[in-house]
Amino acid sequence: MSSSKHLGKGSPRPVLPEDGLLRLFSMRFCPYAQRAHLALNAKKVPYHTVNINLTEKPEWLVEFSPLLKVPALQLVGEKGQPALIESLVIAEYLDEKYPQNPLLPKDPLKRAQDKILLERFSGITNAFMKILMQGTGLDDYWVALDIFEQELTKRGTPFFGGDKPGFVDYMIWPWFERLSVIELKLPQEYNFDEKRFPKITKYIADLKEDSVVKSFYATPEQHNEFWRTRKSGNANYDLLA
Amino acid sequence: MSSSKHLGKGSPRPVLPEDGLLRLFSMRFCPYAQRAHLALNAKKVPYHTVNINLTEKPEWLVEFSPLLKVPALQLVGEKGQPALIESLVIAEYLDEKYPQNPLLPKDPLKRAQDKILLERFSGITNAFMKILMQGTGLDDYWVALDIFEQELTKRGTPFFGGDKPGFVDYMIWPWFERLSVIELKLPQEYNFDEKRFPKITKYIADLKEDSVVKSFYATPEQHNEFWRTRKSGNANYDLLA
Repeated sequence: MSSSKHLGKGSPRPVLPEDGLLRLFSMRFCPYAQRAHLALNAKKVPYHTVNINLTEKPEWLVEFSPLLKVPALQLVGEKGQPALIESLVIAEYLDEKYPQNPLLPKDPLKRAQDKILLERFSGITNAFMKILMQGTGLDDYWVALDIFEQELTKRGTPFFGGDKPGFVDYMIWPWFERLSVIELKLPQEYNFDEKRFPKITKYIADLKEDSVVKSFYATPEQHNEFWRTRKSGNANYDLLA
Repeated sequence: MSSSKHLGKGSPRPVLPEDGLLRLFSMRFCPYAQRAHLALNAKKVPYHTVNINLTEKPEWLVEFSPLLKVPALQLVGEKGQPALIESLVIAEYLDEKYPQNPLLPKDPLKRAQDKILLERFSGITNAFMKILMQGTGLDDYWVALDIFEQELTKRGTPFFGGDKPGFVDYMIWPWFERLSVIELKLPQEYNFDEKRFPKITKYIADLKEDSVVKSFYATPEQHNEFWRTRKSGNANYDLLA
């Protein structure tokens, strides 16, 4: 269902099989929604995707997401069929609820350190938005990335999660997948420096080969095309549908 | 130690006994730091407090808090004596590390719902700052508070944690303790409506009697006096020292 068309204003409620599967309200190119897809796929939890047109939102979205944001995850098997919001909360819920393929470490200190690292990732996400919206902030982006280069060095493992990708890795990957959009926006200034970021360079290449990342991947050309249409005021949500 | 003087620029590193106790870097009137005090006191975990002058910060603060914020919690007993930042991360770490007096529910769904509620509390904290900084946003504050009135009604318990205060309660209390500062800032407009917020009215009165809240409490007059001095550009951090 994840390549289904994005439902907009006036759309009837989607009819899904009563199979008890989780329902993820998503948008194909939203990096926060991608976090939820990656967590679900990493945990191998089956689910339905309901794609949402974020420009003209369907009236019933509010029932699942009070702030009208994606991702929202409806827990069809739970009493009252509640929905969760906030990508990190959703991912941690999945990790706690479904013990298979654990993503966060069990040790309280390591868990806390991973969550702090994710808080610090807001330096990247903020700079990313500023670049796309205002065409400025590239230096801030690289400075925020320095922290992750240093942390990978400190941890001494290919991924933040260790020898294989874990919670931090899947929660930050969506922004690395979108590096091309920065280059598209700032073609003259864009200067990813492999000498400044040797670990991150290898990290990005390694993650691109990860089966979970591959399970919900869009190419640089696809991200760029989506961004072009969004910038023009007519976002092509169904580019991959 | 929690009423010790706030250390500023040029201060030597504090000399603390080598007793293995946790060290909390705090500021007596910071609501985020208060969260960490409440979590520590609720869990009955002994600790030292190092109070920090946030206007003229000591040079060594960066070693414990890379973004120079409080709270920061140094884990003296752990290898390398790492420090944690971010109030919610610190509180959840304490809850996971020290099993006594659990604060968050064990059920993954309930944990997630509590965390979402805390995310939504940013409506209150943002409005609070806007009121204090720009003298506007009082309506937004009450609209954000509606959500908490409704949620208390829905839960049907005196506290968000149930029959006694839990994680959500201690994490949001610091802003209720500071309602007087809004009234001080907007004396004409301030209009807390007990008919609109009957549950919250009782909730605030009940929490004020809680032993943990009492363990780190400042009066409205003290908060107001701190805010007056802060606004004048000469924050009196040591008001209670």
